Amino acid sequence: MKAKDKISSIGSTDEPTVSRMVEDVIGCKWTLTIMQLIRRGVCRPGMIERSVEGLTTKVLNERLRKLVRYRILERRAYPEVPPRVEYKLTPFGHKFARLLDAIEELEKERAMATTRGADSG
Amino acid sequence: MKAKDKISSIGSTDEPTVSRMVEDVIGCKWTLTIMQLIRRGVCRPGMIERSVEGLTTKVLNERLRKLVRYRILERRAYPEVPPRVEYKLTPFGHKFARLLDAIEELEKERAMATTRGADSG
Repeated sequence: MKAKDKISSIGSTDEPTVSRMVEDVIGCKWTLTIMQLIRRGVCRPGMIERSVEGLTTKVLNERLRKLVRYRILERRAYPEVPPRVEYKLTPFGHKFARLLDAIEELEKERAMATTRGADSG
Repeated sequence: MKAKDKISSIGSTDEPTVSRMVEDVIGCKWTLTIMQLIRRGVCRPGMIERSVEGLTTKVLNERLRKLVRYRILERRAYPEVPPRVEYKLTPFGHKFARLLDAIEELEKERAMATTRGADSG
């Protein structure tokens, strides 16, 4: 754990801060893609895996566990035969997703401004 | 430059991504405080320095330069005697500041949820 994380962590859990989560989720294309799929209702691991080319079961499970640990996702297991597992965004997860939208929006604006700057300069 | 920054950087400039900036600004108490002061209209370096206990001229200037490089702040120099320098948020800086507000809000909600969870658990 880096010194900065120590200072900014809240409570007694090992959870990162929201800004650290933002950086983590945006920095990992798999995590971002998995979150967007679940947001759109693709909520079962098998469906997610089939929807993303190159995504392995191992990586998918790691990312899902991480998002549950961050309390962005919640896991629901249904005692059926065969057993059914679904993931959905928590209320925090929905707000977090909207934050990512806002960041993406700003990123786009910035990219456009940079392009315009490069054109005129 | 880390591999991740390379992948996610947009355009040909050395600017970090918005999420990297978020992490950077929130991770540095000086940067955050300086930004909040300028937002509230404390826009001259001397005034900022006097408003923050422990803030040195060197650190202040470094942070101001960084925020200008990120295009969060813009620097205005007035050719007066004595010369006057003021900083203000750019349009992007205002949006970025609102993003920080949203993150802070989520962070607070999360801290409260953690406290409640610890009480009940």
